[in-house]
Amino acid sequence: MEPTGNKSGKKKVVAVVGGGLGGALNACYFAKRGFQVQVFESREDIRAAKVVKGRSINLALSHRGRSALKHVGMEEKVVSKGIPMHARMIHSLKGNSLPSLMSNSLSEPLLHQGKADGTKEHIEADLIVGCDGAFSAVRKQFMRRSRFNYSQTYIPHGYKELTMPPIDGDFAMKPNYLHIWPRNTFMMIALPNLDFTFTCTLFMPFEEFEKITTGDEVISFFQTYFPDAIPLIGAEALKRDYFRLPAQAMVSVKCSSYHIADKCVLMGDAAHAIVPFYGQGMNAGFEDCIVFEEIMEQFNENLSEVLPEYTRVRVPDDHAIADLAMYNYVEMRAHVNSKWFLFRKYVDNFLHALMPGSIIPLYTMVSATKHHGSTCLL
Amino acid sequence: MEPTGNKSGKKKVVAVVGGGLGGALNACYFAKRGFQVQVFESREDIRAAKVVKGRSINLALSHRGRSALKHVGMEEKVVSKGIPMHARMIHSLKGNSLPSLMSNSLSEPLLHQGKADGTKEHIEADLIVGCDGAFSAVRKQFMRRSRFNYSQTYIPHGYKELTMPPIDGDFAMKPNYLHIWPRNTFMMIALPNLDFTFTCTLFMPFEEFEKITTGDEVISFFQTYFPDAIPLIGAEALKRDYFRLPAQAMVSVKCSSYHIADKCVLMGDAAHAIVPFYGQGMNAGFEDCIVFEEIMEQFNENLSEVLPEYTRVRVPDDHAIADLAMYNYVEMRAHVNSKWFLFRKYVDNFLHALMPGSIIPLYTMVSATKHHGSTCLL
Repeated sequence: MEPTGNKSGKKKVVAVVGGGLGGALNACYFAKRGFQVQVFESREDIRAAKVVKGRSINLALSHRGRSALKHVGMEEKVVSKGIPMHARMIHSLKGNSLPSLMSNSLSEPLLHQGKADGTKEHIEADLIVGCDGAFSAVRKQFMRRSRFNYSQTYIPHGYKELTMPPIDGDFAMKPNYLHIWPRNTFMMIALPNLDFTFTCTLFMPFEEFEKITTGDEVISFFQTYFPDAIPLIGAEALKRDYFRLPAQAMVSVKCSSYHIADKCVLMGDAAHAIVPFYGQGMNAGFEDCIVFEEIMEQFNENLSEVLPEYTRVRVPDDHAIADLAMYNYVEMRAHVNSKWFLFRKYVDNFLHALMPGSIIPLYTMVSATKHHGSTCLL
Repeated sequence: MEPTGNKSGKKKVVAVVGGGLGGALNACYFAKRGFQVQVFESREDIRAAKVVKGRSINLALSHRGRSALKHVGMEEKVVSKGIPMHARMIHSLKGNSLPSLMSNSLSEPLLHQGKADGTKEHIEADLIVGCDGAFSAVRKQFMRRSRFNYSQTYIPHGYKELTMPPIDGDFAMKPNYLHIWPRNTFMMIALPNLDFTFTCTLFMPFEEFEKITTGDEVISFFQTYFPDAIPLIGAEALKRDYFRLPAQAMVSVKCSSYHIADKCVLMGDAAHAIVPFYGQGMNAGFEDCIVFEEIMEQFNENLSEVLPEYTRVRVPDDHAIADLAMYNYVEMRAHVNSKWFLFRKYVDNFLHALMPGSIIPLYTMVSATKHHGSTCLL
């Protein structure tokens, strides 16, 4: 994307820390404003990487999120790469049901490609934008300052990822669905990848994970709760892969303020990581970007006014989303099977009625996974 | 204090990080159990220091706190050094009133002296006890681990300390009182020091501090709210000292869990810094020490059982105290003058009825200060 230049003639420099979804989108927004953009990413170039390190965030792109992409001409490019997912497929213990739902799945690396930048050199910047995720290094600098409010809360659930290989070179299950196995206090989901595998993600309280210590106990557990998944994953692979990594933790992060003077600002998960059970993590990050853009316009790019205003406007909204996600998680634990989803739909609609400008109802709960760079776009 | 020796014959080594009140008390407790105790303190020996760096915690020693000292034979030694403070002295805008109250003041350095240790060498320890305060370095190691829940919340109030010098070699006000100037959303207190000075501490919202930018504005402010203090502090000293340091922040810290395996444990402010407006900060820390001692006895010093049990027992109680202190602060902001104290007394008594074992009613609000090592013991 070509910088459009700004009024003073001298380009302002912005250092975007983090080349993930939020960092990449911010890079486009600042470039469009004529800033000289430098993106810093500690991981290797996702286009060249054989094995993608680190973990995915959970993705659910709302209309608002799509319009964030559209503003920088990326909406069609991103959405067109997807595997369409027409509906959720609920795997009950006794059979499959199929609620109606239009949706779309695409590969997360594609979402990064056009934008991530591997540069690591030191530069002088007019502004540092911390888009470096839930465990943000930029935010650690905020922690060293006085009067920075901060909280991190881990939930009792963890997750494990398992791969469902192709069968005869094709998907083992219907690819055009978000597959969900809701089971009381835990559940599994599966999302299609471009290489014809599915990534299955099992969400469960850590204490339940800890009860399973042998391969036979894994099989027994799956026979009780996910019998249809055993032949699809393969019993031997299941026994082996289940123990490949410990269950991963999920954290909710809130902080305030989001800025230091006119020099540094936090966006996305770096500012407000939320638990994935509400599917609004990425949208809240994209919303940060849109709101920042609007405030930049309003205050004519005067950063000493823009940054405090961004904190003033965004902190309450982001904290509300984080609280809502946590509330939804707590409620979900208390509900069983499909009631999880009925409940969520109710909350969605209620919120949409309350805040039509900022909350778009989503008709499913989405948690994406990534070994193979899989994600889900609704 | 001589170690009493333990059963196995081989001494266990405990590294106590922090030579403040909690660290010193813990050192005594572990020594009494026969541990080899090493205390690590980054500041210089308080007995040799000319100027004491760092800030004081706010102290209010309850019966429970005194019994913590008594267990290691320190109660009389500490209490006997005090300047008796028989009552609160309320400085109203129009005159002084005097509610009845028995209390006691003593110099904080005395509280440290017998116990603090300046050792800085590296040692191998069976157990590390983090007693290093609200900005704990030990806790920072906990932050690097997954599933550590943590929050830090700064309140809108800050504080500034001012010195009231002696007049003709004697105290400028009656020394046997806790002097309080309650003024709506802010207040000042004064506590006697051993050198015949008083340390005055002004608590006020940061935004109010920021409004005062010149010496004349300081005098004008004091003429409006604390007219009787101007001649006692001295107008010129007031103009100068007010700007010596920026207003200091106050933080509430909560975290969980308090331990790592059987190796490390947090106590006192390191585990649960609370805002000073409830006067229970030191007691909660001393209570940690007593509870740990009881659990050590119960589990025969088996640290792999003791540490999880300590977390299980203490986290809910400490979080409740922290929440209560914050709640009390929020309520106080909404009340004026003496209603602050009436309200607090009500809460005290209510809590005592609820939890007689762990909450002893205090009949005043205490916030201590320290340039000259002043504190207040009730």
